[in-house]
Amino acid sequence: MKIGVFGTGMVGHTLATKLVELGHDVRMGSRTKDNPKAVAWVEKGGARASQGTFADAAAFGELLVNCTEGQASLAALHAAGAQNLSGKVLIDVSNPLDFSRGMPPSLTVSNTDSMGEQLQREFPELRVVKALNTINCSIMVDPASVAGGDHDVFVSGNDASAKGDVTKLLRSFGWRSIVDLGDITTARGTEAYLLLWIRLYGALGTPSFNVKIVR
Amino acid sequence: MKIGVFGTGMVGHTLATKLVELGHDVRMGSRTKDNPKAVAWVEKGGARASQGTFADAAAFGELLVNCTEGQASLAALHAAGAQNLSGKVLIDVSNPLDFSRGMPPSLTVSNTDSMGEQLQREFPELRVVKALNTINCSIMVDPASVAGGDHDVFVSGNDASAKGDVTKLLRSFGWRSIVDLGDITTARGTEAYLLLWIRLYGALGTPSFNVKIVR
Repeated sequence: MKIGVFGTGMVGHTLATKLVELGHDVRMGSRTKDNPKAVAWVEKGGARASQGTFADAAAFGELLVNCTEGQASLAALHAAGAQNLSGKVLIDVSNPLDFSRGMPPSLTVSNTDSMGEQLQREFPELRVVKALNTINCSIMVDPASVAGGDHDVFVSGNDASAKGDVTKLLRSFGWRSIVDLGDITTARGTEAYLLLWIRLYGALGTPSFNVKIVR
Repeated sequence: MKIGVFGTGMVGHTLATKLVELGHDVRMGSRTKDNPKAVAWVEKGGARASQGTFADAAAFGELLVNCTEGQASLAALHAAGAQNLSGKVLIDVSNPLDFSRGMPPSLTVSNTDSMGEQLQREFPELRVVKALNTINCSIMVDPASVAGGDHDVFVSGNDASAKGDVTKLLRSFGWRSIVDLGDITTARGTEAYLLLWIRLYGALGTPSFNVKIVR
């Protein structure tokens, strides 16, 4: 599949690399056409890897992945262009972390709203599915690296068929337990969980953990 | 031990009953001396169960447990009286849930503050330990009822010795994995998690679940 990945940071890099490994054609998008991190990724990425602006990546992808920082996500999607987003599935991995008061970060949007909802409201023709934002990126693409893969990832979104597409992709990453939380407002839950995740990171001394729902 | 439990709702009832079963002397506190729910609990509770006002319960308890609704917690502790709270350990089980906009609830305080911090700030001589607020009350007192007890509970607080006391009590309930998240500001994490808990409740169709941290 042709996939556009927004963001050249560690999350974008990790997901784009995994998607190429799985045989997808991946275009990494950023603010500028010649982002050095994107260029370096393409040089190592082989024939299936390419890069360009947010608009280039959006136009290229049949499926899109938002790996930009939460505070930059709305601007990134505006740069991508509503016409390039319309009708497509966007996996929103972003978290609205605010480091302006130092560590630990707070959230720029939370409680009665979420980043996922903001993106969905701003681009109603985009099919936003919040997913993978509760996990460190190394585990996102290799769930088996922790507890043999016996733990959970969550999806939130208004479009059942879009969530089906994302679930399929997550299974190809090795995810076995994918919990559909409901519509995009349930992203409030997974984004707010970051406030616990950050503290668990501090207490455990490693970002290599996840939660398993037990009943 | 003599324990004061604030609140006559399901959480207070469940915890007070468990504490009596474990051999503690428990006084349930509420706004009025003759709260019908507290009176009914005492009638069934045996010789170790008593009830009274918040101040009565606070004066009685060597250890205190706040099971009032988050929105009522500050008022409950003021009614209990700073002199009755001073130097004591308070397990704060409350969550600042706001149902005024209907379901699902939002939080009245979150992100950059928490209920646990508010109580600690208001009563600096009280040794607040946030705990058990991430779990349905039936599981609080019977962790083995879910996944054989192989899941996690969190403690947050500024006083290491107070957290030690609470950890001991939690072990007597059957908790095996008790994660010390750090100071009372880490209550922001466990309180914000309620926004995910509520959505998990909706998705799973039961409140009888918890999370296990996997590494």
